Amino acid sequence: MSSISTQFFSVNGRAYRPPARPVVVICLDGSADEYLDTALAHGRMPNLQHMAVGGYRGLARGAMPSFTNVNNASIVTGVPPSVHGIGGNFFYNPATGREEMMNSAKYLRAETIFPAAARAGRKAVVVTAKEKLREIFASGLIEQGGVAFSSEKAGQAELKTHGIDRVEKVVGSPTPPIYSADASLFVLRAGVALLQNGMADFLYLSTTDYVQHKYAPGAPEAVEFYAAIDRELGRVLELGAVVGITADHGMNAKQKPDGSPNVIYLESELSGKFGSGFRVILPITDPYVVHHGALGSFAVVHLPAPGAGSETEGNSPNEPLLASREGSGRGRRAGGTARDREGVRGEGGLLLDAARDWLLERPGVTEVYDRDTAARKLELPADRLGELVVLSGRDVVLGRTPEYHDLSAPENGLRSHGGRYEEMVPLILSEPLKPEYAARAAGDPRNFDIFDFTVNGTRAK
Amino acid sequence: MSSISTQFFSVNGRAYRPPARPVVVICLDGSADEYLDTALAHGRMPNLQHMAVGGYRGLARGAMPSFTNVNNASIVTGVPPSVHGIGGNFFYNPATGREEMMNSAKYLRAETIFPAAARAGRKAVVVTAKEKLREIFASGLIEQGGVAFSSEKAGQAELKTHGIDRVEKVVGSPTPPIYSADASLFVLRAGVALLQNGMADFLYLSTTDYVQHKYAPGAPEAVEFYAAIDRELGRVLELGAVVGITADHGMNAKQKPDGSPNVIYLESELSGKFGSGFRVILPITDPYVVHHGALGSFAVVHLPAPGAGSETEGNSPNEPLLASREGSGRGRRAGGTARDREGVRGEGGLLLDAARDWLLERPGVTEVYDRDTAARKLELPADRLGELVVLSGRDVVLGRTPEYHDLSAPENGLRSHGGRYEEMVPLILSEPLKPEYAARAAGDPRNFDIFDFTVNGTRAK
Repeated sequence: MSSISTQFFSVNGRAYRPPARPVVVICLDGSADEYLDTALAHGRMPNLQHMAVGGYRGLARGAMPSFTNVNNASIVTGVPPSVHGIGGNFFYNPATGREEMMNSAKYLRAETIFPAAARAGRKAVVVTAKEKLREIFASGLIEQGGVAFSSEKAGQAELKTHGIDRVEKVVGSPTPPIYSADASLFVLRAGVALLQNGMADFLYLSTTDYVQHKYAPGAPEAVEFYAAIDRELGRVLELGAVVGITADHGMNAKQKPDGSPNVIYLESELSGKFGSGFRVILPITDPYVVHHGALGSFAVVHLPAPGAGSETEGNSPNEPLLASREGSGRGRRAGGTARDREGVRGEGGLLLDAARDWLLERPGVTEVYDRDTAARKLELPADRLGELVVLSGRDVVLGRTPEYHDLSAPENGLRSHGGRYEEMVPLILSEPLKPEYAARAAGDPRNFDIFDFTVNGTRAK
Repeated sequence: MSSISTQFFSVNGRAYRPPARPVVVICLDGSADEYLDTALAHGRMPNLQHMAVGGYRGLARGAMPSFTNVNNASIVTGVPPSVHGIGGNFFYNPATGREEMMNSAKYLRAETIFPAAARAGRKAVVVTAKEKLREIFASGLIEQGGVAFSSEKAGQAELKTHGIDRVEKVVGSPTPPIYSADASLFVLRAGVALLQNGMADFLYLSTTDYVQHKYAPGAPEAVEFYAAIDRELGRVLELGAVVGITADHGMNAKQKPDGSPNVIYLESELSGKFGSGFRVILPITDPYVVHHGALGSFAVVHLPAPGAGSETEGNSPNEPLLASREGSGRGRRAGGTARDREGVRGEGGLLLDAARDWLLERPGVTEVYDRDTAARKLELPADRLGELVVLSGRDVVLGRTPEYHDLSAPENGLRSHGGRYEEMVPLILSEPLKPEYAARAAGDPRNFDIFDFTVNGTRAK
């Protein structure tokens, strides 16, 4: 233990003074607090129970929208999406006229904590279940001697690009299928193995929510999954680590009483009411559609082209018309160009107001904001939003059109996230909190404070 | 047990088919789920743990605002505030020009479940901690042979008015002080006593949140309180009851890091920006100010008198001017008179929009709605609102002016409720749910479904 660096470092305006013990931050993807409650009630999470009693267990507020990339990016940078720039898995880029996945470090506008930790002498390691997150997390880390790999592509990790190779041998398990509980457990087992063999003393372990999308908290499969997580947690604690646990988002059933998905098709409804040309972006969209069928409780709406009017035919979101209109290269960064704003606030302003008011009247819609209000109230990057942002209720998801979604994808009924009812997540520490952090925990702590809490906030030395 | 009536009855459009067992619904005032989590983690709620494993434990969405009267009235009627009419502890009644407490049955626009249960042959009993709720709950019940009393005034219950006398002797405890854990425990002990001696087989037991306002979930006092609740719960279960547990609202610390209350003084801020004449109603206000100093996360704003302009001097909310202005007897029921509406939508509409937009920009304010939108989105009675409704964040409360509030009242720092972050509450049943109720529990169940779930939803016979 004496070889563990306690050197101060600072990232994005936050100071970190790590203890002389391994630091392990775990993001349990999709872990609504009820999953922990149920497994605990069954007596299947003794190590978590030990943390709750001897350390701290409470709730933290996540970043909105309550999606994976948004919140993982917040956790690894310690700042909200308005600063780090990742406001969804997906956005419509007016500069390119394309809908783009934000699974690349090029979209990240803030440094992650890991290169700084590595420069301060920590053996920084990031293990994620989904490969989509690895590049964001690895940004700048490998160059500093750190390690970053995914369980999804564990077998393909190479020294030059991942800071490690022969991962399967190190972990003692084969690369798991991504649609499995094992994809997450592999992440935790990898953390244990790297702690054990001295390759890591500053870890971020980020699981995937395959189990939670598929199973409710009371399902035996969910309880077994959390029991397995707890076993790995026990090993991490035995190895002397200070452990902080949070989640990126919660999870709720989004179904009608008959079990069918409870969807509001925004693009269809808006077109039916106001004419064509609306483009609805669902920032939950990612390559892992089996989880959720691209249906979540958060959507971004781009209005029809200013001046084109709401009745313009053929102004379909998939046609190049929009791309060329928006493709001037100036884009809408930081709230859009003056001309764009005039369009929206001028003749387009009527449509914006009408669409906002009309959307807010839809049952199941909980909040509707214009771009600037959404950016301010939800801490989002304005230039990666549309003119409107829409949130839906606990059991309601937002879609584009019925044709767009493969509703057969969610096999056991739709469970998803993205809205306010998946915003609150666990905040758990293995050690008692210092008084000032206890006060913060009692206020409005954020899930992206987890590194601060784990590194600085406990009485661990 | 064979003497317990299973006769069907129906209230406010809901059908109830009670089992041949005692039915006990418990509302644990201010019980954020974290209180249960902490006491469970300490192993101090074995009976609740048994319910969670053998029955059901999840979360339900309460009625907004997340206040006591609003949610208790919803629970006992099975309908939202838009139907039963109790949208706060307090409202400004334009017909009388007064700010009125809604602690009387005359404000209730829907029948409670209890008289119907009594008519169907059940021994219906309501025990509440606070006297303020008793009259609402007792509405129509005593005439049907039922019982209703409060622990606060237990010693004063009389047969004619309460359906019971000598309560202290029946319960075996003296009337507790209202500012005590005992005020709540007395409620549960009374339920046990009345079950034991055959005086009750259909009970609603509603506690008070003195402990939760005072202590965070991790405080030993809170853990002891829930352990004591659990002991009474065990007795209720031993007596063969089907038990349903929920809460009226959660509870959060509403403090700055230095421990001082985190307040936005709406009346001061609005007057400073737009001129005098704004009247801010805080519907958390009740006679029990030690709990919260009348500070919660929900407020109603009445704009200055239409036509009077926002610069009118001396138009203070406490002066008779307003009373006479609004005292025509026509009031604003169902959205206000045509003249009122014209005022608000006409020259006053500019002020309404400006105030709404400006309020929404305040850090800590989470939602701002005009009257009709609030009524629709929050299921509130429009005629008991003002022109604007304001909600605040997890650690933020709304006040009138600094002078109005006694900030020394909350002794150990301010913990309060009223907003969205106190909206989700426990939903716990002692028996496994029928499949259709399991599906509903997984969707968006409400805390005011608790009688439906407890009476109809379990496999108890």
